[in-house]
Amino acid sequence: MHSISEYQEVISSHFNSLVVAKEPKNLYEPIQYILSLGGKRMRPVLTLMTAEIFDCNYKKALQAATAVEVFHNFSLIHDDIMDDAPLRRGKVTVHEKWNINTGILSGDAMLILAYQYFEDYEPSVFRDLAKLFSKTALEVCEGQQYDVDFETRDDVTIPEYLKMIEYKTAVLVGAAMKMGAIVAETSKENADLIYDFGLNLGIAFQLQDDYLDAFGNPETFGKQIGGDIIENKKTYLYLKALEFSSKDDKDQLLHLFSIQPKDNSDKIETVKSIFNESGASKVTQEAIKEYTQKAFETLQKMDISEEKKQILYVFGEKLMNRNV
Amino acid sequence: MHSISEYQEVISSHFNSLVVAKEPKNLYEPIQYILSLGGKRMRPVLTLMTAEIFDCNYKKALQAATAVEVFHNFSLIHDDIMDDAPLRRGKVTVHEKWNINTGILSGDAMLILAYQYFEDYEPSVFRDLAKLFSKTALEVCEGQQYDVDFETRDDVTIPEYLKMIEYKTAVLVGAAMKMGAIVAETSKENADLIYDFGLNLGIAFQLQDDYLDAFGNPETFGKQIGGDIIENKKTYLYLKALEFSSKDDKDQLLHLFSIQPKDNSDKIETVKSIFNESGASKVTQEAIKEYTQKAFETLQKMDISEEKKQILYVFGEKLMNRNV
Repeated sequence: MHSISEYQEVISSHFNSLVVAKEPKNLYEPIQYILSLGGKRMRPVLTLMTAEIFDCNYKKALQAATAVEVFHNFSLIHDDIMDDAPLRRGKVTVHEKWNINTGILSGDAMLILAYQYFEDYEPSVFRDLAKLFSKTALEVCEGQQYDVDFETRDDVTIPEYLKMIEYKTAVLVGAAMKMGAIVAETSKENADLIYDFGLNLGIAFQLQDDYLDAFGNPETFGKQIGGDIIENKKTYLYLKALEFSSKDDKDQLLHLFSIQPKDNSDKIETVKSIFNESGASKVTQEAIKEYTQKAFETLQKMDISEEKKQILYVFGEKLMNRNV
Repeated sequence: MHSISEYQEVISSHFNSLVVAKEPKNLYEPIQYILSLGGKRMRPVLTLMTAEIFDCNYKKALQAATAVEVFHNFSLIHDDIMDDAPLRRGKVTVHEKWNINTGILSGDAMLILAYQYFEDYEPSVFRDLAKLFSKTALEVCEGQQYDVDFETRDDVTIPEYLKMIEYKTAVLVGAAMKMGAIVAETSKENADLIYDFGLNLGIAFQLQDDYLDAFGNPETFGKQIGGDIIENKKTYLYLKALEFSSKDDKDQLLHLFSIQPKDNSDKIETVKSIFNESGASKVTQEAIKEYTQKAFETLQKMDISEEKKQILYVFGEKLMNRNV
């Protein structure tokens, strides 16, 4: 087995040498651009790691890992158009650097390219990978649609919210790991269990992201603290606060999430104190623990050595402590 | 074998009963909407017909045919956004009826759905279909990009133009037929030959579309006569006219293709007479014949009965006389 940083190094150098750039330039240059922006490359790393967990050389999983990362970046391009986002990883987004039409078309091409990376595998592995990929990609689209729908709805429930983050974020984490398992040709049981491990860890990670967005350490959390509050995003914290608050606090919260003041510092402080006083912060932390625990429980059922389970456990712990 | 209209009936009733509509509604309703707009369904018809040409029940090809039609409609949604088109088949386009974001996301979902329709086939057939599909889909994106690029270029060559229409239009005709051949599990030689038949017929059809756009019968040609001239589209006719015209005519043509008058009737008449007098009309008709002939020649090499060849020949003749 290799360490996470070794896998990151592999993926990083693979993407540095990956050539998708050919004619027409206006289609392929934006693809090369977004793939060069980097990031933690967590999803493809998980594919490589999982292949080795199931006793397969990580090199065999490199094409599947590439597909996962290319798909993820496709979704970033199209999401950034929909969100009208100017920046991605500190750099100009594709539709800002070129234009919306280029963003649409280059994104489309990336979705197709992702499927092509599976073509190196033999027919039955190819089919299993492509089927999982299609199911996952469709769920990611559904998750994005729910996210868009929720912006204009004031009756979003907690189960609906959980389904949204599961589809938009967590299924791809589960699928990235299961692809490593498919390439390694382990048992169906192991493959399904590693999917559940990734899925639950993905949900926990996203809930933690909601939490840290309000209560994280500005030094270590990558984004601006209070960003979700500024954007009036209906996160788990917000929905739970609405559920638990007194009438007065609830009204204040609804009001604060309907305005966009120039200076947000008062709004952020007030919202955070409602999150705390309502008990929303506490249940969010409990939910994070619960999903993390659920992920670790699936580890126990897996037919792999204790040593391998330990590697996944340590990875999960590190991820949830945000040290990866 | 069945007749074209029988295949059309099969496809039509298949799409009438096809349910893609599930949650979230805002993602799936636009898909159901565009798939219900109809059209000639020529591509999926070709998939069914080709399967039977190679002695396979057309029903076995229905899922592949569905994939082809769903992909085609995906490309219409995204192209209509890029072209800012208000109407499609006489009805409001998806991005006009909903919005651009819905058009992007529903289109993405359709591209993924297309792959899922292949999942009914056994692994090696699935892989062959998916590989051909990815290659074709990527070429369609490239063709669309070339088309966009050509709008702002004044040095487009005839080979470049031919490559653009080949990628944007003809490869999907070839692929639609080859998918029928793959499902029928005929020889690789036959599958490649039927692809070439469809490809060349597709190029001939698109060149004829260029020709009829200027010189077609307003009663029978589906679109407004002179539409390409109004939009200053650099078609085969236009590029050949530029190549063959005297300096004066060339200058006039360049000028006419730089303006957008309110009343287009004078512009259309002048351009058409330059098309005729330069000899561009004549060489366009010759090119149409040449590609049609090329398609028919591949028929001769095919390892099928004379009766089957005759069916494809009659289809090609009918298509080029626009009676299908």
